[in-house]
Amino acid sequence: MVNRREVTLADVAARTGVSVGTVSKVLNGRGQIAEETRQRVSAAATELGLTVRAPGRTVPGADRAVARPMRGFAGAPGSAGVAPGRSFLVGVLSTDAYGRFTIPILTGAEDTFGPGEVSMLLAESRGDPIRETHYVQTFLNQRVDGIVVTGRSSDPRPSITELLGVPAVYALSPSLDPDDVSIVPDDEAGAARAIDHLLGSGRRSIAVISGARRHTASSHRVESAKRAIAAAGATLASGDAMYGEWSERWGYEAATRLLGTQFDGVFCTSDQIARGVVDCLREAGIVVPTQVGVVGVDNWSVITDAARPSITSVDLNLREVGRQAADLLMRMIQGEQVTGGVRTADCFLVARQST
Amino acid sequence: MVNRREVTLADVAARTGVSVGTVSKVLNGRGQIAEETRQRVSAAATELGLTVRAPGRTVPGADRAVARPMRGFAGAPGSAGVAPGRSFLVGVLSTDAYGRFTIPILTGAEDTFGPGEVSMLLAESRGDPIRETHYVQTFLNQRVDGIVVTGRSSDPRPSITELLGVPAVYALSPSLDPDDVSIVPDDEAGAARAIDHLLGSGRRSIAVISGARRHTASSHRVESAKRAIAAAGATLASGDAMYGEWSERWGYEAATRLLGTQFDGVFCTSDQIARGVVDCLREAGIVVPTQVGVVGVDNWSVITDAARPSITSVDLNLREVGRQAADLLMRMIQGEQVTGGVRTADCFLVARQST
Repeated sequence: MVNRREVTLADVAARTGVSVGTVSKVLNGRGQIAEETRQRVSAAATELGLTVRAPGRTVPGADRAVARPMRGFAGAPGSAGVAPGRSFLVGVLSTDAYGRFTIPILTGAEDTFGPGEVSMLLAESRGDPIRETHYVQTFLNQRVDGIVVTGRSSDPRPSITELLGVPAVYALSPSLDPDDVSIVPDDEAGAARAIDHLLGSGRRSIAVISGARRHTASSHRVESAKRAIAAAGATLASGDAMYGEWSERWGYEAATRLLGTQFDGVFCTSDQIARGVVDCLREAGIVVPTQVGVVGVDNWSVITDAARPSITSVDLNLREVGRQAADLLMRMIQGEQVTGGVRTADCFLVARQST
Repeated sequence: MVNRREVTLADVAARTGVSVGTVSKVLNGRGQIAEETRQRVSAAATELGLTVRAPGRTVPGADRAVARPMRGFAGAPGSAGVAPGRSFLVGVLSTDAYGRFTIPILTGAEDTFGPGEVSMLLAESRGDPIRETHYVQTFLNQRVDGIVVTGRSSDPRPSITELLGVPAVYALSPSLDPDDVSIVPDDEAGAARAIDHLLGSGRRSIAVISGARRHTASSHRVESAKRAIAAAGATLASGDAMYGEWSERWGYEAATRLLGTQFDGVFCTSDQIARGVVDCLREAGIVVPTQVGVVGVDNWSVITDAARPSITSVDLNLREVGRQAADLLMRMIQGEQVTGGVRTADCFLVARQST
């Protein structure tokens, strides 16, 4: 057993003359596959020693049954016929250097997985596809039950589901494949909530200052904010949204450009931008919130609480994104058919002195 | 095999009438143990099916040899007699909610472990000892080869090495047990470097503003700074160091108290404190760096680069702490005798506009 090469999806694909993707879909019960193909792939997989667990997952290699037996999620510790204390193992693949956005997602996933129930294997590809492939293989060698794929931004990313043979959920960075299961923060609802909050305190001429235009987070937040301003019959100050960087410096500069124009509210697509705005307005003698209300996004207390005044912010609830990603993954591992597509988690607004 | 309970250190302890700690020490070749005891424990462990890998580690359960064979670190992928692509598995136990200080340590550990060589299992105890015990057991059930224990601060923490039966290295938060292997940032050298940098640009009256006095990071940095100031015959401004919070607000308040006194340099034990100082001085019309030089600690670019002027800072090189922790752990897993005690990693200073 030790020297035997593990059977891979590619072996099954070669045997049946279909793509690795098709094999993956059959073994995971995903996608639209002709019944004849499904049966042929299943038969070949069984013949090669891959146990087909319709509709959920694969157990590669018979030795796995000895090493880490499959068991029901709910009944985890102490289930009959299973060594006590054995755990599920899931992989978390991040393109982010364990950054600020990955952290709450990991914490949320851990909320769902629970201590001692499911263990998380962590790997960080640093945006390098070769490194990513390497880590995916390592996860599979470690016989993970499933993988959470997460990243640095809400920009969509290529799917790796077909390489896996185990379920995958994409958190924060959604998969480009609509058959995949993705969960992201609700950027649009968050921006709408910020505008509603400004309108609710009587602001009627609202500037929108955003980070780089090419980012999905930027376009989703800005477009939603513009729609909410228009729907209320309020004015978009300076005629259009202002795009720049995700930095305090840009917030400061953008606010400088606004000085002398007509505005009583500013929606910034990040707290760092909002802090630059607040600093600029204070130094220009404009009183926040009396004359101008300011709202940011991220609810990053390091920034919001240090600002003078402290900044009202939309919390995109990344921890909830992590919780839901883990929950979806566990359901898929248990064999539940989860509909593909991009889901969103609810966000909320934290009011502080700037509004 | 599936139903068989795993043999634990407690089983060996019960059989031989010694403590679990003694069993752990024998199996890991640590501590001072009488030869007779060592032999008795080794014999009982072998009898119960724990393979004693003198002097390095234990392989609990014969099924492990099938599931994930031990292999040499250097020769990792493709070593003779081992299934291709099989990996080491190590646990990383953090008391920090994947915080700002844990992140670079994880990244550094991954630098050393390398993609596809060693996989990291991650768990975060949120400072709860019961949760920690639970996670440790999960790690052992997953048959980790070793554990990196890390935390939120440089405050020492209780040892868990004796519970493990596999090697452990403590990173950032050192173990209270001097037999354990710990690696921490060099707070004292970092503070001395900051003072030398201020002295080097001609500052002679230096204020020291720190976070909470009870933290090890605070006392180490402050005491080292005071020694460096005294050794150079310079003056400690305001007579003594000022202790408060690890926040911009405290930096601003402390600097306000300094206004009107004699000082031409400020050493702050964090970048957040330094930013509060820089903001206060600018608003009071004191020009940084012309009149006063300011140095922080952490080299946290979110803070240092957003400040006006940008802040010179000591980088405590936590990534290097993580690299060295992983390196020490791999050496211990391979059976090398690593001397216990607290090691430090080298730090460096990044000069910016504030000096």
